[in-house]
Amino acid sequence: MITAKARAVDGPDKSFRAAEIERRDLDTRDVLIEIKYAGICHSDIHTAHGEWGPVNYPLVPGHEIAGIVTDVGPEVTKYKVGDRAGVGCMVDSCGECENCRKGEEQYCLNGKVDTYAAVDKYGEYTQGGYSTHIVVTEDFVLRIPDNIELDAAAPLLCAGITTYSPLNHWEAGPDKKIAVVGMGGLGHMAVKIAHAMGAEVTVLSQTLNKKEDGFSFGAKDYHATSNPETFEKLAGSFDLIINTVSANIDMDAYLSLLTLDGTIINVGAPAEALSLSVFSLIGQRRSFAASMIGGIRETQEMLDFCAKHDIAPKIEVISADQIDQAYERVLASDVKYRFVIDISTM
Amino acid sequence: MITAKARAVDGPDKSFRAAEIERRDLDTRDVLIEIKYAGICHSDIHTAHGEWGPVNYPLVPGHEIAGIVTDVGPEVTKYKVGDRAGVGCMVDSCGECENCRKGEEQYCLNGKVDTYAAVDKYGEYTQGGYSTHIVVTEDFVLRIPDNIELDAAAPLLCAGITTYSPLNHWEAGPDKKIAVVGMGGLGHMAVKIAHAMGAEVTVLSQTLNKKEDGFSFGAKDYHATSNPETFEKLAGSFDLIINTVSANIDMDAYLSLLTLDGTIINVGAPAEALSLSVFSLIGQRRSFAASMIGGIRETQEMLDFCAKHDIAPKIEVISADQIDQAYERVLASDVKYRFVIDISTM
Repeated sequence: MITAKARAVDGPDKSFRAAEIERRDLDTRDVLIEIKYAGICHSDIHTAHGEWGPVNYPLVPGHEIAGIVTDVGPEVTKYKVGDRAGVGCMVDSCGECENCRKGEEQYCLNGKVDTYAAVDKYGEYTQGGYSTHIVVTEDFVLRIPDNIELDAAAPLLCAGITTYSPLNHWEAGPDKKIAVVGMGGLGHMAVKIAHAMGAEVTVLSQTLNKKEDGFSFGAKDYHATSNPETFEKLAGSFDLIINTVSANIDMDAYLSLLTLDGTIINVGAPAEALSLSVFSLIGQRRSFAASMIGGIRETQEMLDFCAKHDIAPKIEVISADQIDQAYERVLASDVKYRFVIDISTM
Repeated sequence: MITAKARAVDGPDKSFRAAEIERRDLDTRDVLIEIKYAGICHSDIHTAHGEWGPVNYPLVPGHEIAGIVTDVGPEVTKYKVGDRAGVGCMVDSCGECENCRKGEEQYCLNGKVDTYAAVDKYGEYTQGGYSTHIVVTEDFVLRIPDNIELDAAAPLLCAGITTYSPLNHWEAGPDKKIAVVGMGGLGHMAVKIAHAMGAEVTVLSQTLNKKEDGFSFGAKDYHATSNPETFEKLAGSFDLIINTVSANIDMDAYLSLLTLDGTIINVGAPAEALSLSVFSLIGQRRSFAASMIGGIRETQEMLDFCAKHDIAPKIEVISADQIDQAYERVLASDVKYRFVIDISTM
């Protein structure tokens, strides 16, 4: 067993504390990663607070992981000691179902293994990236290109792929007008990636507070959704809308912004059911879809795309002692645009 | 002016009565059609009863029209006297917007002109096919292939194109598993067309009452939605679901039947908003869409497809005096599968 330092919570309303966790000894195809940075995703908070169902505590969250390979199992072929490596939202899948065979492991029909708060094939609870080390089978390890700093790389493993995948799947490109709803961790990545893909990007945010940032990330236009005129002015404008807001928004209002054959894609899921009128879809053959992270092959493609286009998230690096405070600030939307934990402070 | 005999209603709760209506004198590109048969669509009933908003009475419904060309305007090039001709749900559109230029006149951004209960470019209320004659610009007239009987052709102009268009747009074919929800006028056409396109078709109907018919139309499988086991057994099975039921169904249950990247397409719209959980979409990147009739070019393509594959609706021909009774039977789901009025009885 490998002992790792970590930060864990012991219950839905508990603060983080220093902890030691065990990582399994390397299986034949396992990679040991010394974690350098771990991003804080809103999902971490939902899970730590037990809002997405019962959790096995103590829990170590974190699925935006960047570090250095420090050991490999005897049959590992893709990585060697010293490689820059990342881990995202999943650490395993069945590998055999139709979706896994397509490289869409995130939709594994037998259930992907989440990076934390899941049970892996060894029967152990998985623990995430707020820790100094992690052991992952090489098929679920990503290669971090040399020109992406490790701290900036971390959020790409969730916020990056979650927005890249739908933009890629629904073919964002020079002929497409795209709106991004929400300018948080996911939204700011969606703007950067869609812009780099050549699309014309509009941000739809509650206020105009982050307008200058939006333009600097590549948006061509920026509108406040708190202003009802926004919906009149932009009716029928967009081929795609990436909705990064997990709250229960007025779907009919957003659907009205789509062109013929336009699609709105949720990349988060509010806990409550959404309500919408079929008339909002049928009048212009619109679609309402949702997308969840991306497959491993596509995640590597995203990292390489970001390296090529010099795309990185805008981050605020914090120490391990600041996680509780960071959670509060995320809940208050007081982050530009992603917190990343410097694991050397653990 | 051309005087036509018709059957009209004078208010939401009135019976049909014999009436005379005026059709405009032929404009340069107009075609005069002597109507032989007119199908009864559920939309006729909604409109006649004023359920879709205020209507200008007296109203002559009917947008499934088949007949013979008896006169043409001086600049008509596509039709001549004696041609077998049809008219569907629209008789005009702006012709200039982006969607019209794409041949998707049904989604005209300036508003298509419905075959009845609309106002045309002459400022006149349009009146539909429960009448002996109609005058329509040649661009909105369809050619009925010789091997489709005129009575059977009528329902293709709405029920046929409404189901053909989404099957065509979402690429139904030999590699696709398709479910059709509802086995009424639209549903039975969806089964026939999807089967002819080479797809494997399953019917999802409330009961098994029409099972034998379903198989004879080309379905490979048939399940009762009143049986909860249906949803367990068929989870994750279908690439496409064509939902012909306009009632407020349990969207989450139907979404669970889709594969990765599967789409459910509503071809009708219930008056009330629908409720669904984004988790039903995000777990397998599913889509919820809706589709409305089809463009003129695609409607001609559908007629030619039906001629080639020997597809016709199963109909019950009635006399003009039986319209009220037919409406009652449609509302009681007591029709196999479309009523068609023999206009010679008018």
